[in-house]
Amino acid sequence: MSESTPPRTVRELGEFPLIERINAGRVQSPAVRLGPGDDAAVLAAARGHYVVTTDMLVQGRHFRLDWSSPRDIGRKAIAQNAADVVAMGAQPTGFVVALGCPAETAVGFVDELSAGMWDEAVRAGGSIAGGDLVRSPQLVISVTAFGDPIGPAPITRSGARAGGTVAVAGRLGWSAAGYAVLAGGRAHTWSTQAGPTQAEPTQSGFADVESPEADPAPGKSIEDGSMTVELAEGGSAAGEFAAAVAAHRVPQPPYRVVLDALAAGAVPDALTDISDGLLADLRHMADAAGVAIDIDSAALYDPALDALATAMDADAAQWVLTGGEDHAFAAVWPPETELPPGWARIGSVAPGHGVTVDGVSVSGGGGWESFSGADSVDRGRSR
Amino acid sequence: MSESTPPRTVRELGEFPLIERINAGRVQSPAVRLGPGDDAAVLAAARGHYVVTTDMLVQGRHFRLDWSSPRDIGRKAIAQNAADVVAMGAQPTGFVVALGCPAETAVGFVDELSAGMWDEAVRAGGSIAGGDLVRSPQLVISVTAFGDPIGPAPITRSGARAGGTVAVAGRLGWSAAGYAVLAGGRAHTWSTQAGPTQAEPTQSGFADVESPEADPAPGKSIEDGSMTVELAEGGSAAGEFAAAVAAHRVPQPPYRVVLDALAAGAVPDALTDISDGLLADLRHMADAAGVAIDIDSAALYDPALDALATAMDADAAQWVLTGGEDHAFAAVWPPETELPPGWARIGSVAPGHGVTVDGVSVSGGGGWESFSGADSVDRGRSR
Repeated sequence: MSESTPPRTVRELGEFPLIERINAGRVQSPAVRLGPGDDAAVLAAARGHYVVTTDMLVQGRHFRLDWSSPRDIGRKAIAQNAADVVAMGAQPTGFVVALGCPAETAVGFVDELSAGMWDEAVRAGGSIAGGDLVRSPQLVISVTAFGDPIGPAPITRSGARAGGTVAVAGRLGWSAAGYAVLAGGRAHTWSTQAGPTQAEPTQSGFADVESPEADPAPGKSIEDGSMTVELAEGGSAAGEFAAAVAAHRVPQPPYRVVLDALAAGAVPDALTDISDGLLADLRHMADAAGVAIDIDSAALYDPALDALATAMDADAAQWVLTGGEDHAFAAVWPPETELPPGWARIGSVAPGHGVTVDGVSVSGGGGWESFSGADSVDRGRSR
Repeated sequence: MSESTPPRTVRELGEFPLIERINAGRVQSPAVRLGPGDDAAVLAAARGHYVVTTDMLVQGRHFRLDWSSPRDIGRKAIAQNAADVVAMGAQPTGFVVALGCPAETAVGFVDELSAGMWDEAVRAGGSIAGGDLVRSPQLVISVTAFGDPIGPAPITRSGARAGGTVAVAGRLGWSAAGYAVLAGGRAHTWSTQAGPTQAEPTQSGFADVESPEADPAPGKSIEDGSMTVELAEGGSAAGEFAAAVAAHRVPQPPYRVVLDALAAGAVPDALTDISDGLLADLRHMADAAGVAIDIDSAALYDPALDALATAMDADAAQWVLTGGEDHAFAAVWPPETELPPGWARIGSVAPGHGVTVDGVSVSGGGGWESFSGADSVDRGRSR
């Protein structure tokens, strides 16, 4: 390559210069004692123990380049891991990221992906302490997240007690609604090529949106660029369409609602993030504790989501009960606890087993079970 | 699937049953306070801080299914991460593993992969504390490893001082030699299908061995089974051929040689593992400390490797100086230190910069530089 042409692809720039580039000027969180550049990073464990979680995101399964910008993908990869850390009652401190990408990936794409990761890492209170960069036929992002428990012990899924109050922090069903909008071809997407040789925005229209399983050709070049969406639908629910698409692209777990409660001394008996869907995740919680959970469907009613569902001839309750990936938080609070700010009661815990909605069983071989999405590697969701 | 047929693929078995299956009966290391099954794992940090490293391995780049058994691949994935932890002067405590695989992957393949990971994790003194399982067009394994520093502080690459002694623990060049044997078509490989409906061994012969870059078709099914190798070469170097192939498949970092020295109070000024090649990794060390390193080539002479190189009309010195993936350890010991057991002197540190062999510069735009393999994402090596 000539000196006058800046390197456009990962292959042209090379691994080490790219690693330097994406780490340049970054400020590590206080817990990260040693950042990138040695055999390993070093993190502080203020309490003598730490929580660890890992999630892998694969192009074409967990994100699509025609649906999400690289910055969105970076934020999502960090957010879903940070949510797992917070769901243990822990403050996120650091992340390590292994990134696999084709050699023809645009340097600008990696810049944007990395910027999105840093944005979300800082939002969660941590930083990116290290990683690995390898060649792969398609984008693969594997994030491992670390955190310091705020209380004396991590908060597991298994502590629910009869008489407790089930409450949620954050939105439910919006990511599933956004998926339905995108998968149903109800949004045009445009990809704006923003490389050094810059071009006009090109419309990708509806191409490929029917098949959420579509894998792009291995080794296909990945352009940098931003992504805009224009809705095929307008009318009264236009704002909700856009909000749902945004929610699907980048989950916004309400980290602070959980962490502020804990810092104020309000400690739930059990805590999890909603990644597989409310029913599935509450079922894990009920099973782990050997209790029954009943959900009050009226408490889950969301007028804006309902307006969107009506416009799409869909069922808002299904999105709320079975949609994953919003990474809201569910907790069981001890009996008689006044809920901390940002938490809304949605049900209660009793002796028994399983999960019911308004007293009606939804477990077993029918009902909501078939939508739970938690029983197969075929589902794209990461926990 | 009928009740009389055990599930043969990951798709048939499902994600959660597969996770249960590979975790069944496993005993966590004492540092792992909470293992798989919740939003995150919990590990103890005996010294109030911990080291973290991550490496991603992609099928067709970092391993090949026709060259390595699933058990070999699992061991390698853990070993290269554990070596990075030990290279910080830390005792490996735990690992988390994100695994992407096609839905048609045989359950028995994942069993073997997991068994290999556990074997190596236990060998390194840790256990597998959690993970993620997702669908991917080809196998992708992302490991993050954790460790407790043995001394009061981690040992970085950057502490080398003039007058120090450069020493190595472990073998060099054997993995590169094994790669040369396999890539040169000098070994037949057989894959033994070991599924429930199992059959005779089938010879895969030389198919595909010419192209180490070959990516298998996305979504191709992955069979379980073991792998044997029969050498096309025999004669005086037959034992060395087999040893080199074994070294390429499964690196055997001498964890205990490093950890025992530290436990006995022998602390080097600088420490790293050899993953990019001796010259490249010593150059990182020299650059980080602002010193010069000279290697004594006579100290690197390995008669067995030389016999193999002669039989292959290859250059043993090149394997030793530039071959990565053996995950031996290199350290700079303070002046006048008596080397601990298992360490062999290979050179010395002086004021200046760069790396020389017998006083001759090997940095810059020629010499060994072109083999260093450390400057591009196109190389399959993970650090």
